[in-house]
Amino acid sequence: MPDLIIKGGTVVNATGTAQADVVVDGEKVTALLAPGTAEALGITADKVIDATGKYVIPGGIDAHTHMQLPFGGTYASDTFETGTVAAAWGGTTSIIDFAVQRHGERVEDGLAAWHELAGGNCAVDYGFHQIIGGVDEESLKAMERLVDEGITSYKLFMAYPGVFYSDDAQILRAMQKARETGLLTMMHAENGPAIDVLAAQLAESGKTSPYFHGIARAWQMEEEATHRAIMLADVTEAPLYVVHVSAKQAVQQLAWARDNGKNVFGETCPQYLYLSLEKQLGARSEEWGEFEGAKWVCSTPLRSETDGHLEAMWQGLRTNDLQMVSTDHCPFCMKDQKTLGKDDFRAIPNGIGSIEHRVDLLYQGVVDGRITLPRWVELIATTPARMFGLYGRKGVIQPGADADIVVYDPNGHTSIGVEKTHHMNMDHSAWEGFEIDGHVDVTISRGTVLVEDGEFKGRKGHGRFLKRDLTQYLV
Amino acid sequence: MPDLIIKGGTVVNATGTAQADVVVDGEKVTALLAPGTAEALGITADKVIDATGKYVIPGGIDAHTHMQLPFGGTYASDTFETGTVAAAWGGTTSIIDFAVQRHGERVEDGLAAWHELAGGNCAVDYGFHQIIGGVDEESLKAMERLVDEGITSYKLFMAYPGVFYSDDAQILRAMQKARETGLLTMMHAENGPAIDVLAAQLAESGKTSPYFHGIARAWQMEEEATHRAIMLADVTEAPLYVVHVSAKQAVQQLAWARDNGKNVFGETCPQYLYLSLEKQLGARSEEWGEFEGAKWVCSTPLRSETDGHLEAMWQGLRTNDLQMVSTDHCPFCMKDQKTLGKDDFRAIPNGIGSIEHRVDLLYQGVVDGRITLPRWVELIATTPARMFGLYGRKGVIQPGADADIVVYDPNGHTSIGVEKTHHMNMDHSAWEGFEIDGHVDVTISRGTVLVEDGEFKGRKGHGRFLKRDLTQYLV
Amino acid sequence: MPDLIIKGGTVVNATGTAQADVVVDGEKVTALLAPGTAEALGITADKVIDATGKYVIPGGIDAHTHMQLPFGGTYASDTFETGTVAAAWGGTTSIIDFAVQRHGERVEDGLAAWHELAGGNCAVDYGFHQIIGGVDEESLKAMERLVDEGITSYKLFMAYPGVFYSDDAQILRAMQKARETGLLTMMHAENGPAIDVLAAQLAESGKTSPYFHGIARAWQMEEEATHRAIMLADVTEAPLYVVHVSAKQAVQQLAWARDNGKNVFGETCPQYLYLSLEKQLGARSEEWGEFEGAKWVCSTPLRSETDGHLEAMWQGLRTNDLQMVSTDHCPFCMKDQKTLGKDDFRAIPNGIGSIEHRVDLLYQGVVDGRITLPRWVELIATTPARMFGLYGRKGVIQPGADADIVVYDPNGHTSIGVEKTHHMNMDHSAWEGFEIDGHVDVTISRGTVLVEDGEFKGRKGHGRFLKRDLTQYLV
Amino acid sequence: MPDLIIKGGTVVNATGTAQADVVVDGEKVTALLAPGTAEALGITADKVIDATGKYVIPGGIDAHTHMQLPFGGTYASDTFETGTVAAAWGGTTSIIDFAVQRHGERVEDGLAAWHELAGGNCAVDYGFHQIIGGVDEESLKAMERLVDEGITSYKLFMAYPGVFYSDDAQILRAMQKARETGLLTMMHAENGPAIDVLAAQLAESGKTSPYFHGIARAWQMEEEATHRAIMLADVTEAPLYVVHVSAKQAVQQLAWARDNGKNVFGETCPQYLYLSLEKQLGARSEEWGEFEGAKWVCSTPLRSETDGHLEAMWQGLRTNDLQMVSTDHCPFCMKDQKTLGKDDFRAIPNGIGSIEHRVDLLYQGVVDGRITLPRWVELIATTPARMFGLYGRKGVIQPGADADIVVYDPNGHTSIGVEKTHHMNMDHSAWEGFEIDGHVDVTISRGTVLVEDGEFKGRKGHGRFLKRDLTQYLV
Repeated sequence: MPDLIIKGGTVVNATGTAQADVVVDGEKVTALLAPGTAEALGITADKVIDATGKYVIPGGIDAHTHMQLPFGGTYASDTFETGTVAAAWGGTTSIIDFAVQRHGERVEDGLAAWHELAGGNCAVDYGFHQIIGGVDEESLKAMERLVDEGITSYKLFMAYPGVFYSDDAQILRAMQKARETGLLTMMHAENGPAIDVLAAQLAESGKTSPYFHGIARAWQMEEEATHRAIMLADVTEAPLYVVHVSAKQAVQQLAWARDNGKNVFGETCPQYLYLSLEKQLGARSEEWGEFEGAKWVCSTPLRSETDGHLEAMWQGLRTNDLQMVSTDHCPFCMKDQKTLGKDDFRAIPNGIGSIEHRVDLLYQGVVDGRITLPRWVELIATTPARMFGLYGRKGVIQPGADADIVVYDPNGHTSIGVEKTHHMNMDHSAWEGFEIDGHVDVTISRGTVLVEDGEFKGRKGHGRFLKRDLTQYLV
Repeated sequence: MPDLIIKGGTVVNATGTAQADVVVDGEKVTALLAPGTAEALGITADKVIDATGKYVIPGGIDAHTHMQLPFGGTYASDTFETGTVAAAWGGTTSIIDFAVQRHGERVEDGLAAWHELAGGNCAVDYGFHQIIGGVDEESLKAMERLVDEGITSYKLFMAYPGVFYSDDAQILRAMQKARETGLLTMMHAENGPAIDVLAAQLAESGKTSPYFHGIARAWQMEEEATHRAIMLADVTEAPLYVVHVSAKQAVQQLAWARDNGKNVFGETCPQYLYLSLEKQLGARSEEWGEFEGAKWVCSTPLRSETDGHLEAMWQGLRTNDLQMVSTDHCPFCMKDQKTLGKDDFRAIPNGIGSIEHRVDLLYQGVVDGRITLPRWVELIATTPARMFGLYGRKGVIQPGADADIVVYDPNGHTSIGVEKTHHMNMDHSAWEGFEIDGHVDVTISRGTVLVEDGEFKGRKGHGRFLKRDLTQYLV
Repeated sequence: MPDLIIKGGTVVNATGTAQADVVVDGEKVTALLAPGTAEALGITADKVIDATGKYVIPGGIDAHTHMQLPFGGTYASDTFETGTVAAAWGGTTSIIDFAVQRHGERVEDGLAAWHELAGGNCAVDYGFHQIIGGVDEESLKAMERLVDEGITSYKLFMAYPGVFYSDDAQILRAMQKARETGLLTMMHAENGPAIDVLAAQLAESGKTSPYFHGIARAWQMEEEATHRAIMLADVTEAPLYVVHVSAKQAVQQLAWARDNGKNVFGETCPQYLYLSLEKQLGARSEEWGEFEGAKWVCSTPLRSETDGHLEAMWQGLRTNDLQMVSTDHCPFCMKDQKTLGKDDFRAIPNGIGSIEHRVDLLYQGVVDGRITLPRWVELIATTPARMFGLYGRKGVIQPGADADIVVYDPNGHTSIGVEKTHHMNMDHSAWEGFEIDGHVDVTISRGTVLVEDGEFKGRKGHGRFLKRDLTQYLV
Repeated sequence: MPDLIIKGGTVVNATGTAQADVVVDGEKVTALLAPGTAEALGITADKVIDATGKYVIPGGIDAHTHMQLPFGGTYASDTFETGTVAAAWGGTTSIIDFAVQRHGERVEDGLAAWHELAGGNCAVDYGFHQIIGGVDEESLKAMERLVDEGITSYKLFMAYPGVFYSDDAQILRAMQKARETGLLTMMHAENGPAIDVLAAQLAESGKTSPYFHGIARAWQMEEEATHRAIMLADVTEAPLYVVHVSAKQAVQQLAWARDNGKNVFGETCPQYLYLSLEKQLGARSEEWGEFEGAKWVCSTPLRSETDGHLEAMWQGLRTNDLQMVSTDHCPFCMKDQKTLGKDDFRAIPNGIGSIEHRVDLLYQGVVDGRITLPRWVELIATTPARMFGLYGRKGVIQPGADADIVVYDPNGHTSIGVEKTHHMNMDHSAWEGFEIDGHVDVTISRGTVLVEDGEFKGRKGHGRFLKRDLTQYLV
């Protein structure tokens, strides 16, 4: 007898919906049945979840998280435990975090350290991308071994000189290695050297408040780097995935590249869909005064809504010039962390915490008529799985897949706020006050119920490391 | 006990593949089972098809056919019977044909005539689009009733003045009606009035051979009409579907529109992917001499391979600037039909027959590395279903769907040619000599095996009329 | 002894300035002299104009006027006399008006009628373009004779079905004839058939006020027609000149065509640089109430400033995607003329009077930093001359040229208004209240002073017909 | 009595032609006279040049030369004397050479050294741009003083790391300084760091022949750098001038920037209009074998004609997406110089010598119907003058201008070749065998005849340093 049947729901996948019962045995989906078929064939299960009137969707995959990331003298405040518990609450059953190698460090060591941090601590499954912060002979050699380790993507930075930055010669060489090995190149596309000049000039002229973070990181510098990454990819014939796109003009560059047949992909994040530079500029609180704006300091920065950047992100999701939505979850508390930059925006740790809210925030896009229901599932689960070599196991509800399933109630409601439900290890929420017309009712990971009836039933250590295949988006 | 299990195959859908057994009961897919699950649950069936090593795909949907179309004093040579039998042989289990209304005729009469022609004669399921060849108060009124009839799309012509042509005022009014009713506007986008001047000038100067058909129908005139249709759609806020796109520059117009967030879609056909103006120009035969080229007279015409049109169609399919591939199946025999234009290319009936080969020809694109395996299924079945309101029933293998299933053998082989296998009612094949690295082994329609073991086991009259929902591509 | 020396001024041409004295003998410029040279060579003249501190520029050429045009049951209110006197006041010494041929009329008759109207009545030189309102065998034949008549450009309309409208077949044939003869094709690019549907729908729904004129004539319909004209020109290999461009997106089409090497040109008018749909919408007066907006009913219509159309026109002038500025001077009084459309905007005669103000309004663009000083001269005189086959005679101050010269005072001032200086035969001014930081001090036509010391010294009949050469812009 | 009259010629300027006599007194043009006016006014001169049937044009301005440039361990082979004598032969009467500052050197020293090299040695007038090869506090400070020195433009390199290369932070800071001072930024736009990787990989794999120079310097790397320069200019609001554009896609970037209203300019060179990568690939000689191709090693490199790069340069000149043509004259002999790279293309000194042939080669473009006659003058003289602050003095024939005049015979002929006429200090010609349908008959500099009757009559030391004004192209 199977362990579980999810009955009566509407299964949503990336091309449409089906009325179907989902049968789970052990960690796997073993059958999808038309209504009545279970009864006709006499199939019962130990546990039955009634999904009548609800959506049954593949568990969310957040392909861009930074648990415990060292940044600017502190660490991202979510551990793999706290972060993945929050993920489960929010309907996300897989994350892909970034193992870190910096200039002068060995890739193997960085990867081992990340295994150490995550191993045994995660509530949901996890994989790694590899940050290559120092491209040289040794790290290029190390890249060759990553595929066997199940690390099939790596990230370069065109920003943060002296920390993660690669120059164009390094980028070219890494992309050539990617072309050779099948690794997918992820790019933080901002012209860091130019931005650092602008930022220093602002700071030196007394413009030190959080708002100026976004002024220094001008959209031109994101657009430029995006174009440059596209052309370096073109000359090496390697596919390219641009992370956390926030500028309208950067999307236009992606569209231009794609119109010309280049294999270029783009990810945006909930903050670039909903939060604006104007909001940040106007932010004030009793506790933090004008420094309140630090809650929304992230890179790429929030952009101007008036100038159409937010609308451009939604449009990019509709036109598929942007393929998926990750969080770039990189949480820092205001206290003791963001406040490092009280006197100079350059010292504010960059990052926003969203891992708990991505599935909800995107569903609100369905309610608001911005994206379709199947596109929601495609953006949060199916494409992340295909892009990063997890499809079949993850990202789709089909026989043989991992039973990573979310029961989502379109008639439910979710109020976001620190005093409401909030499981991320942060002393504030970038999303305080957001109201969602839907609710994650049940989260299941490999057949195990993690969240149900408003209770967390999972455990640290349930999550396993995901050895990923090469990207499936191009095959 | 279910009627049928298709065991051991690789089920392919639009986002990837699954190893799964497909259970059919009556006309429906009732279950998808992971390998071993049937055995574990004791599920058996009356008939078992072994699909080991083969692809199990949703039956093809050819959304653009013209059975028995009156054109230039003759009729397309396939009846609904011969055409749909050929479709079944080629793995296509649904067609959408065009009911015809011309200036001065009543829409209801045209639709009734098409029901008359098709009813009881089809081997596979069939639906109708409605051609509106005479936009006026009455036909606009008639458009309002089409949705209830299950006719959720209609077609206008910017070509063929005096026959099907609508001027811009008529197009605008029809699109407004489409916006109001939810009907999807399909457009034959060629500037007919201008083309007719060019064609007459060529003919009058003695350039009468088939090749000049393509010269007269210059790409500029397709590009122009495509842009015009886009802008008329824009001003009416109606979505637009452009049929049989063949010019590189027309795809660029579609891409431009889509980059700007417009709901504009494009279809191409196998002939524009594989056959070229150069081929037509060089065509000679003992039987027909230079008139051999008449076999490839269709509108839009074949385009120059040298100028990159064919490659642009493949690229458009990859970039999703073109969403699907239909045949525009409109067969005419050389004898007594094409020969009407022996002395003047303008009198050659326009059309190519491809209904039997679309699934194969597109699969060859997979073999040749031009499109991916899931994209193949998306192009030939899933998107046609979504675009034209059949998804769920058709276009996907999932519980509750019609059991329209093709078992496709990637290790099989298909040689195209009149003397080989050829079931279309034509005295020649536009595809003579094409070799396909794959084979349609089994075709199943609503649970009934139509083709198996190299035999046609279906029957005229099996096919039912498809009342279609509104387009699902935008919801 | 020469008749005239203009001394001490700054001669401005299309590439820059020179400090030079201009010597005029009879109707011609005979010498340009460096400062001091006249003295050194002992050159004196009967009359000396002191231009110290002033600009000496070639007389303005207004290449788009409609004196006495029959339109909607009335006639443009300026005669060739009143209109050209106003031109002279405003620094314009040549006009090119439009001879009219309508469907069913003979081109020769239309042209003869225009010669009749203008002959002996003009205060400045005048040429004609030929409107071809009915393209057929006879008018195509007549086009062949135009070049010999000194009529080297003709105009087609994509708007006004039933009056001036040409369909695409007609346009194609006319462009072929233009390609053959060297005639330059001028195009009124608006999709008239579609606009008329929109206008009728607005009017029928009670939206009859002047503002809705601009709503009916949506920018999409200008953009579309512009693109269509470009492609018809492309297929015929004929150059194209689009008149009165007002939509941002139309300029984008011109830019696209030009980027691709097509010989496509665009003209805008002062009204599209300074006057907006918003201004028209908000217009109210004691006398006319909401009908006040009728003063700004012209076609193409005024566009939204908020949507960036006005700024786009200025930018187009800077980028040379728009090559020149004409007025489309087509004046109608409010009383008895505009009021024909009191109850229905469709009956308001279309047109604005600007012939007196073009040179000033564009100079204000120099003052405001929108265009450079040489560009001013290029836009109002040099390019019009080159475009329409007058260069050498007109459009430049150089030896041998007609002495059509304006002394412009950058320290002068011009207040526009009916009660101030206003010589056009209109009971209102579309430019009421505009203040210009410059002043036309002296206007000279073929050596004869027309305006000086605030007095009109010219006479009706001074102006001669200009037999024009083929366009010089491409050679 | 004036010193000189050039009689009977056709004066050509940037907008058209005039039949006019040009009167020269001392170093200046003092009068332009209509035919017959000299006689009527009794103006005679010491010397009369009969220009009947010939073009009288402003002397050419070559705004990009590198006399005696140190490069790769050798020096460009023309001294200021030999190079400017060759210039005079070819109708060029002004050059703008590049003073060099490299990392670690003082700008003042570089400039002084260039004054030392050129002073007293030039046969024609000369100005300097300043190369800033090491942007730092000191050189930024030095930039502030350049305008007063008459050096109103400076050049940065995105190529040649370790020699002239500036990184993006440096470029940004220099552009800010340019914005502040009015200096025009000239950019060598190639991604040097990436190119150097590609070049090293080719060389290490044994691909060492001259042809691979062009392969390493892929068009993608020019396109990328061009886009990057545009965006850095955009963020600083500084105008940008891109030197030696050779890639079609780079022109597309310039066109894109200009379409969007950015002040971006581009220069191409004769080699990119006439010489191709294919020519270089196929080059063989008895003397040099496959190394023959070294004659055409320059940066940016020659591009593929098949891929449309050459045609794109001509189109860019027509569309004004490229504004002018300079030579990038940088001559190296094969013997002892180019042969430094016999075993490795990376060691071949980069450069081609064309200073003698630019005026002729562009005139051939007029003969071939690629550009118009006025555009010829605009490209070789008028725009260079406006762009670099010489207009009025140079670049136009008008009263008060320097009498820098060329009499060009359209019925003459010029055969290019080392054994024919060749005055550059090179042991070969990149243009060997080119035949020109025109001839420089007379070259006059500031009233002094330098070349006449096939003889050089000028002298070293005639040429004076040109203190240039700020760019006049934007005012």
